[in-house]
Amino acid sequence: MDLINQSEQDKTYMEQAIRLARRGAGFVNPNPQVGAVIVKNGRIIGQGWHRRFGEPHAERNALASCTEDPAGATLYVTLEPCCHQGKTPPCTEAVIERRISRVVIGSGDPNPLVSGRGIARLREAGISVTEHCLQKECDALNPVFFHYIRTGLPFVTAKYAMTRDGRIATAGGSSRWITGEAARAHVHHSRGRNMAIMAGLGTVLADDPELTCRDSQGLSPVRIICDTELNTPLSSRLVQTAAETGPSLRQPRTVIATAEDSPLRTKPYEELGVKFLTLPRGADGHIDLNALVQAVGTMQIDSILLEGGSELNWSALNSGIVNRVQTYIAPKIFGGAKAKGPVGGAGVDSPEHAFMLTDSRITRIGEDYLIESEVELCSQES
Amino acid sequence: MDLINQSEQDKTYMEQAIRLARRGAGFVNPNPQVGAVIVKNGRIIGQGWHRRFGEPHAERNALASCTEDPAGATLYVTLEPCCHQGKTPPCTEAVIERRISRVVIGSGDPNPLVSGRGIARLREAGISVTEHCLQKECDALNPVFFHYIRTGLPFVTAKYAMTRDGRIATAGGSSRWITGEAARAHVHHSRGRNMAIMAGLGTVLADDPELTCRDSQGLSPVRIICDTELNTPLSSRLVQTAAETGPSLRQPRTVIATAEDSPLRTKPYEELGVKFLTLPRGADGHIDLNALVQAVGTMQIDSILLEGGSELNWSALNSGIVNRVQTYIAPKIFGGAKAKGPVGGAGVDSPEHAFMLTDSRITRIGEDYLIESEVELCSQES
Repeated sequence: MDLINQSEQDKTYMEQAIRLARRGAGFVNPNPQVGAVIVKNGRIIGQGWHRRFGEPHAERNALASCTEDPAGATLYVTLEPCCHQGKTPPCTEAVIERRISRVVIGSGDPNPLVSGRGIARLREAGISVTEHCLQKECDALNPVFFHYIRTGLPFVTAKYAMTRDGRIATAGGSSRWITGEAARAHVHHSRGRNMAIMAGLGTVLADDPELTCRDSQGLSPVRIICDTELNTPLSSRLVQTAAETGPSLRQPRTVIATAEDSPLRTKPYEELGVKFLTLPRGADGHIDLNALVQAVGTMQIDSILLEGGSELNWSALNSGIVNRVQTYIAPKIFGGAKAKGPVGGAGVDSPEHAFMLTDSRITRIGEDYLIESEVELCSQES
Repeated sequence: MDLINQSEQDKTYMEQAIRLARRGAGFVNPNPQVGAVIVKNGRIIGQGWHRRFGEPHAERNALASCTEDPAGATLYVTLEPCCHQGKTPPCTEAVIERRISRVVIGSGDPNPLVSGRGIARLREAGISVTEHCLQKECDALNPVFFHYIRTGLPFVTAKYAMTRDGRIATAGGSSRWITGEAARAHVHHSRGRNMAIMAGLGTVLADDPELTCRDSQGLSPVRIICDTELNTPLSSRLVQTAAETGPSLRQPRTVIATAEDSPLRTKPYEELGVKFLTLPRGADGHIDLNALVQAVGTMQIDSILLEGGSELNWSALNSGIVNRVQTYIAPKIFGGAKAKGPVGGAGVDSPEHAFMLTDSRITRIGEDYLIESEVELCSQES
């Protein structure tokens, strides 16, 4: 086969590996989504993906699924195989053992400490390795994982729903509902893709929400409440359901991030199953959100869906912890000089200091639009 | 030719007529955009469109362009030919005189007093008439014209540019710039498509704008200032340029809509070329916007681009005069609890009373998005 044809064929199989990888979405965090396809004599003889955190990696699932001996076959895998012992043994060894002769890789390992080692190990064993096949598409499978591995911090997505005139509530404070059913279902889907969901005390007091994932395909996220003075009612649903367990629930269920550290005050919550993150205050008197994401990162939580009100959204943006913005826009107008917008606080002083958004993409969901963008890094300094 | 083939061929020629019609956009108001194609023996022998208000209609231009005798040919025209004497003689007579044998029509005439008369006149003369060919597409050429003919009122498009968090300015009041260059150029294009542009005194005081159309393809609109107490500075650009004339300028150049009727106060403006619309006050103490659009309609102005601030946008929506909303959304976040949104005023009391938007469509313009929607009629009662 000539090189051009081989390159085209490589892409075709890698596309299949990418499709497989996506099946792990919402179940594998803080691991990456990975897919693998094994091809011998022009036929797919095995395929697999990383299905769930703690379970085997994609390469092992693909090898286990082979309908014939994979010796001499080509393995297509969206991410560089690991060569270290983790929850599962190194994948490179399995690939070598089963006498795969060629490996085609999408993304390199984002961890600078191990990046390239898996590839080197395969080459040492005499395996031909092709790198960077559909790398952009493979990288795009795991923005959260790449961010988390490189920084140790959770990837924060600020989500809000607003009217076409930028209101998250009427002048009287009513916000049910802004968007239609399809968009609200989509939020539950997003919740299932994030390991944690974060809201402020104001939301707890106003709505007494459960912040669960009602999408049957997803795991319910850890619920983090930002509550500097510890005023969350003991009777709130988030506290009352903190001790719940179940196959689709993450542990811990409810975390309160607070500056309050008196055991007298925290004990009643802890008895109901609430975990605490005790944090210093930032310059604005609220808990320091940079300290918060660092603490959350050490809990092996790689992603937070921020469902904040105006003030928490501003604090989060202004702290530089927000990586992505998800804006649902409903086809209606509330008006109202006093109706709240999605981002309050002091705001930037001049347009040049705005937080800039990039890589915007838009989806129509029922009657609403969803615009998603990444927050530009430099704006985190403003 | 069988009927199915004829129907397909009719659509193909009507599509060409629609393309021609669009060339009149921005030049023909308050007339409609109309295109016409003449086909004989399977070949296009003539085509034309309504080029400019006061000039011949599309049918006459098409007939004049014929490369051979149109006797026995088929005429495709996007709008029912007129049968009354206007600025130009009735088109039906020209069609009959030149012995066209078949006419295919898109939209019927929206004026209930004459609708169907042109068709009846053609049939009386023995011409075969096919109606409703691509009617939806032909109707869509002229929403403004249809609205204006049916109601006598201008079609009002409320346009605003906001950040992703729904702000039209920073907390400090700065709004230059929200959107990028491509979107700002697009606004000039929109201005050229509307016969008038309307702003409030606040905008005049803040920006001293010219509100001209800097798109070389368009005519500059009539500029209407809503100024209840008549506080527009005599030194403002809108007043100082009120007497300008030129081939691409509409007359009158500047109109002030006000409740002030003292000749002592209006005379200095009139001497500079400003025209006045003296109007009653509405319940909110400002000029009555329903009276305003009625007065503007009698000036043969069929369309207004409303470039209002928060308060004027609210008054216009709440008066029920707004037909379409154009929202430019920039990929940036200002934040700021005190930063203005695009629609202020009292706002609706509960989400069920929101102004509902329909038929939304989205366009990416440079780095910004433009969402356009129609205002649902029933919401005009809320």
